[in-house]
Amino acid sequence: MRDKALLTDLYQLTMINGYLEHDTANTEVVFDLFFRKQPGGEDFAIVAGLEQAVEYLQNLSFSESDIKYLKSLNLFGDKFFNAAENFKFTGDVYAMREGEIVFPQEPILIIKAPLYQAQLIETALLTIINHQTLIATKAYKVTQETGGAVSEFGLRRAQGPDAGVYGARASIIGGCTSTSNVLAGKLFDVPVSGTHSHSWVLSFSSELEAFESFAKLYPSKCVLLVDTYDTLRSGVPNAIKVFKKLREKGYEPIGIRLDSGDLAYLSKQARKMLDEAGFPNAKIVASNDIDENIIASLNAQGAKIDLWGVGTKLITSYDNPSLGGVYKLSAIEDENNNLIPKMKLSDTQEKTTNPGFKTTYRLYDKDGMAVADLIALREEKFDTTKPLTIFHPVETWKRMTLEEYSMRDLMVKVFEKGKLIYKLPKIDEIVSYSKEKNKEIWSEYTRRLNPHIYKVDLSTKLYNLKQKLLNEK
Amino acid sequence: MRDKALLTDLYQLTMINGYLEHDTANTEVVFDLFFRKQPGGEDFAIVAGLEQAVEYLQNLSFSESDIKYLKSLNLFGDKFFNAAENFKFTGDVYAMREGEIVFPQEPILIIKAPLYQAQLIETALLTIINHQTLIATKAYKVTQETGGAVSEFGLRRAQGPDAGVYGARASIIGGCTSTSNVLAGKLFDVPVSGTHSHSWVLSFSSELEAFESFAKLYPSKCVLLVDTYDTLRSGVPNAIKVFKKLREKGYEPIGIRLDSGDLAYLSKQARKMLDEAGFPNAKIVASNDIDENIIASLNAQGAKIDLWGVGTKLITSYDNPSLGGVYKLSAIEDENNNLIPKMKLSDTQEKTTNPGFKTTYRLYDKDGMAVADLIALREEKFDTTKPLTIFHPVETWKRMTLEEYSMRDLMVKVFEKGKLIYKLPKIDEIVSYSKEKNKEIWSEYTRRLNPHIYKVDLSTKLYNLKQKLLNEK
Repeated sequence: MRDKALLTDLYQLTMINGYLEHDTANTEVVFDLFFRKQPGGEDFAIVAGLEQAVEYLQNLSFSESDIKYLKSLNLFGDKFFNAAENFKFTGDVYAMREGEIVFPQEPILIIKAPLYQAQLIETALLTIINHQTLIATKAYKVTQETGGAVSEFGLRRAQGPDAGVYGARASIIGGCTSTSNVLAGKLFDVPVSGTHSHSWVLSFSSELEAFESFAKLYPSKCVLLVDTYDTLRSGVPNAIKVFKKLREKGYEPIGIRLDSGDLAYLSKQARKMLDEAGFPNAKIVASNDIDENIIASLNAQGAKIDLWGVGTKLITSYDNPSLGGVYKLSAIEDENNNLIPKMKLSDTQEKTTNPGFKTTYRLYDKDGMAVADLIALREEKFDTTKPLTIFHPVETWKRMTLEEYSMRDLMVKVFEKGKLIYKLPKIDEIVSYSKEKNKEIWSEYTRRLNPHIYKVDLSTKLYNLKQKLLNEK
Repeated sequence: MRDKALLTDLYQLTMINGYLEHDTANTEVVFDLFFRKQPGGEDFAIVAGLEQAVEYLQNLSFSESDIKYLKSLNLFGDKFFNAAENFKFTGDVYAMREGEIVFPQEPILIIKAPLYQAQLIETALLTIINHQTLIATKAYKVTQETGGAVSEFGLRRAQGPDAGVYGARASIIGGCTSTSNVLAGKLFDVPVSGTHSHSWVLSFSSELEAFESFAKLYPSKCVLLVDTYDTLRSGVPNAIKVFKKLREKGYEPIGIRLDSGDLAYLSKQARKMLDEAGFPNAKIVASNDIDENIIASLNAQGAKIDLWGVGTKLITSYDNPSLGGVYKLSAIEDENNNLIPKMKLSDTQEKTTNPGFKTTYRLYDKDGMAVADLIALREEKFDTTKPLTIFHPVETWKRMTLEEYSMRDLMVKVFEKGKLIYKLPKIDEIVSYSKEKNKEIWSEYTRRLNPHIYKVDLSTKLYNLKQKLLNEK
């Protein structure tokens, strides 16, 4: 994620030019990056992309050729080029950890930085976080439906190389156990998987010969694609022949893969054939246009599928290919270095932002299950030995008092004055963290159909601040 | 598009390992890259991505760290690493030009190369061509609906940085006149555009002051965003005040931008206000969740919009975020260097591939309008002084005889034995080419709703070959 200073919208640069001319460029500001619940959008998301956002901020500078290009546009003045040539990100960044479940309105990133810097980085941070969080969320939905493991297979249908590579990374964070994408395997140290395609079978004079050759090559990793000619009359019987020979040589086959046809029917028949032939442990892998709805439907039909290969629908988040995260000003420092809370008004409650320099707490009951999230001002202190009353941020009569509870701050400080102070976890640490923390959320909140709405409330202090600003307008 | 040798699916590498073990790796093969008509999919597409595909093939080699990573997988033998360390693409490539309209089943790329090479490059070529062709096609649909110009604004919602940058490139090929994406502007020499956002207005103590500052900064490029507070009561009147001052100083304003609210109503009212104030040439730019259907609807309502900013829906091809291009074997050379045509059978006519080493011709009537495309074997010769009878490839009784006609081969040879022999056009040349050639296609074939189905026929020779292979099975 280097050489990306120009990965931004032109208007960020024209505005920076203006702020520099008006000497407001160095005003310290706070921006929140979050997503809103939208029709057809996400009720929750799995945070992903922080590592790439960090790399972007760490390496952010304008190259000579960037400056030359910007000069050619004839839009910017000397102050702008001076700032660009010496650019270095010097702000503070707070973030939710990758793998965390986040709900609408909760800041995923909070940036506290000079105005011109905060403005420059808006677009790239949105691109990175929107994309990976979108795909991690889709992967979470897909893997939640499976009894078995899911492999990400979508590179060829991804929206360009980055979408494939970072999408594979995000898929692993969301719960996939491997990817077919070799570059992602190298870059992120994630497990790669894959065996052979139809073209392998077609390149031999018979399916049996193709299977035998593959088994000879990979005796301990043998998965055979059985649908090139006729799944039940040719593919599975040939696979069984090869599996028997493998066993004679002391190897157990991994299984077979189905990539076309009626997966419910074929998997049940293939399971029966494998069982009867003495291979009850041979797995059945299924691919072909699969998503969480297809998986749920196949499972409901009693399909015998152990492993899933999911491509297009996952890597593009096909039914909702954009997260819609936004980046909104929440505070500006005045001349006395006091942070003055700001909010954007809107006709709708949903689009009115939450003012001030904030964080989000997850509240747990005595069994350690999450009961609600509380967005609060960062300066607030909470005493968990005392009861806490929380209430709906609009329908305020809906309230609840917690007695035995605990709180967890969902944000960590990642950059301090431009210096990275957070140790980025490795991908397997992210995956473990995610699995562990997400068990604290009842699956009723994340289920595929009609999920129960998780409570995201405002602290009393934040609520009162918001009301005050609303009434001032 | 460098360091991308590992941008592939693992099974390509396991198969290559197998081909090398079986000494079939160097067999010369032909693969076609094309898309099929699918429910909800594309009836036509605008070719894009060739330049990046060329860069990928030219720079294709395994780095030391790639080799090290592959060794760590414990999947490959000595022959594999020998081939990888010395890898260089040595094949022939034929391609449709970027900007060309292509129809289902027509090869966009044809690769003739040793089997192991053709297999390695499958995934990356699909990723590149699928993505850019998808976005160029969406841009074509969006820009077809507008009377005015369209700017691509989607970077923040793109599926990662590449999706934003190459998506911006593809959008220009598809008909957009500019992009907000500065990096795309630098890399591809495409026009960039953008003025200011709501945060500019919010950073001043009043909207009028914000507008005045912007106008002072960019007097000859002044577009003011008028919907931060109240479009018709504050935004447009303030813009008009500023425009009047600009005119006193000898500048004409460009116009205003609307980014929320009812764009039909607001644009009509704003138009009236601008006209009455003496600014009939000030443009109205509209953005906010726009796609070709919204544009058609706004135009039908008489909205007064001159320029469109299109983001999420374009950069993700929201309603169909994947093209679904495939890469299928069409011929294998035998020991006597004869190309033996191959085809993949399927239960459905749609999925049965066209065998042999082919090209596609566009057939024109005497007025120079396209009447049909003809997929033919590359070796075939046509004499356009003689009548040509073409027929539907399935319903063969549907036939037509052309008398006065001309033919154009839609493919150019791009690589010969691994050497680039095609001069890649610059983006403005691609845009001109596309505009010129696409005028030859009746808009009835590319309209938004119920497009007329364009004829894509097979030559008699190809048809007969296909029937022969079908009957042999």
